[in-house]
Amino acid sequence: MTLTVDQLSESGLLARIFPRLNAGSSTLLGPGDDCAIIAAPDGRTVISIDTQVQDKDFRLIWPNGYATTGFDVGWKAAAQNLSDINAMGAYGTAMVVSLTLPGTTPVCWVEALADGLSAAIVALGAQECSVAGGDLSGGSELVVTVAVTGSLQGREPVLRSGAQPGDQLAVCGNLGVAAAGWALQESLLAPEKYSPSLQEAADLFNRPRPPLEAGPAAANAGATSMMDISDGLLRDSGRLAAASGTRLDLDGVVLQKYAQKLTECAQALAADPLKWVLTGGEDHGLLSTFPPSAALPAGFIRIGSVLSEDANQPAVTLGGRNFRSAVDGAVGWDHFAV
Amino acid sequence: MTLTVDQLSESGLLARIFPRLNAGSSTLLGPGDDCAIIAAPDGRTVISIDTQVQDKDFRLIWPNGYATTGFDVGWKAAAQNLSDINAMGAYGTAMVVSLTLPGTTPVCWVEALADGLSAAIVALGAQECSVAGGDLSGGSELVVTVAVTGSLQGREPVLRSGAQPGDQLAVCGNLGVAAAGWALQESLLAPEKYSPSLQEAADLFNRPRPPLEAGPAAANAGATSMMDISDGLLRDSGRLAAASGTRLDLDGVVLQKYAQKLTECAQALAADPLKWVLTGGEDHGLLSTFPPSAALPAGFIRIGSVLSEDANQPAVTLGGRNFRSAVDGAVGWDHFAV
Repeated sequence: MTLTVDQLSESGLLARIFPRLNAGSSTLLGPGDDCAIIAAPDGRTVISIDTQVQDKDFRLIWPNGYATTGFDVGWKAAAQNLSDINAMGAYGTAMVVSLTLPGTTPVCWVEALADGLSAAIVALGAQECSVAGGDLSGGSELVVTVAVTGSLQGREPVLRSGAQPGDQLAVCGNLGVAAAGWALQESLLAPEKYSPSLQEAADLFNRPRPPLEAGPAAANAGATSMMDISDGLLRDSGRLAAASGTRLDLDGVVLQKYAQKLTECAQALAADPLKWVLTGGEDHGLLSTFPPSAALPAGFIRIGSVLSEDANQPAVTLGGRNFRSAVDGAVGWDHFAV
Repeated sequence: MTLTVDQLSESGLLARIFPRLNAGSSTLLGPGDDCAIIAAPDGRTVISIDTQVQDKDFRLIWPNGYATTGFDVGWKAAAQNLSDINAMGAYGTAMVVSLTLPGTTPVCWVEALADGLSAAIVALGAQECSVAGGDLSGGSELVVTVAVTGSLQGREPVLRSGAQPGDQLAVCGNLGVAAAGWALQESLLAPEKYSPSLQEAADLFNRPRPPLEAGPAAANAGATSMMDISDGLLRDSGRLAAASGTRLDLDGVVLQKYAQKLTECAQALAADPLKWVLTGGEDHGLLSTFPPSAALPAGFIRIGSVLSEDANQPAVTLGGRNFRSAVDGAVGWDHFAV
């Protein structure tokens, strides 16, 4: 018999979770009291919150047979939250985690989630960060919410709104890889038959690897605007353009190089890899702008330019053309729209 | 036709929520970027997270016919989170809110939730606090998660673990009122027939009023330990006793006075009001200990004493007796235990 959460008390379940959490030096008071206390050495705390819902953000069993592990969900929760901190030019300091669990959830699945949170924090390089507290609830479906805090270490935050016409547009991290991984798991192609490059795409969808050093490095290099690419390059570019009151023109030649890396996945699924690059979410790379003469920090690649706003032009173009003429109409991820 | 959330885009729904949020002076950067930024003037941030799940923490329609409003859920989310901050001796500075919404949720229900959050923040006296950011997800049931931050303003936090033998045990706020309100809503007694005292209990269950000035006041008055009474006096007393390595003896005569205030509710439901006082959760008052000679701050009432730990005695007694001999075995709220 698999032990399930309804067979344990709340304190019994917590007693199984706590030993699996890493210790982070920014946590001044950890789990066990009404609140945790987190260091905020420069007198400010950066904060964000993000939720994963079963059957919306992940399937427990995918069409290709892959079963999402608790480790995957914990890893992704840490990664996507730390990516939001990264996108401000900050370092992660702590997380508080709320788990809504059906009573039939195996205890080992929850333990694996705690392991995934801790493993991602360490593997992605956020060692000062740890899970400082949380909340457990019963519910009919799994919902995993993480609120994350960060420190700017005295720097000014890099907002979405600071792009200037003439700036270089650059990305750091993957484009379209998580989308390819998602498409593989939505397919009937059994994971046992994956080549290394297909396996890598699936792994990066299940356990994304945001470049957590790159946000503070971009801030130090003078980035004028920055955001996390979580909902796809086109959609997020549109948001950055709108926040900054500018237009953005993407370089199709450079983006094709990202698409070429996805050739094997695309052939396996008869899909268009450029569409993954342009519209695929959940890679959690960074989209940033830098002054015209700035040297881009390590890991950033120029993918376009910032232009002046023009009421007669779309906010985002691809090689000067409306991207809707280059790819079909899908423009990223919206939680409610059809 | 009622407008539902699946008829709006994510940005369309956010555009209806943002104008309903109050502005708090601790928010240095509010909603709209990857993260918010909150002031932490003494170099520390107090943080907690709490979740309400439909059909677990609230019913959309209660047996007595009452329909939980979005306003109620928003108010309670703010109140129970700010209560955790209060219990450290801190003031609330900001909230980030994650909403998981079925597509059929009326947009006006979500707007009312935003109104309830803002109204509670202001009415409970946490004016520096505001909703600084959030996340929207689709799901099959309503899940509302709030993470809240606070400032200790240079004070030491008051933990659960500091009670000393000889200390006075005191509470501030209601005991058992929310439990009476919950029992009314679980009954078949129609709200239209409520007397003022029944209506007050129901109102305080749906929209609790934690005494937010009392936490910092207790800290300033030298409280040795403190916690929020969210899961019932007996259960939470047991937690404080365990954290402090002490026993607690409750004064049955004083607690009977709290029970007497609930006489009308108890008669209406043929219930034992002392059981509500001892085991009822969600009043969000404070349980605190003070040195023997300390004058209790305004609003605190002595309800017992801190005693030395004794392996042969239960952690919490009522007038020196094992409380299980005084009331039946229910000891508060556990999310998973039967």
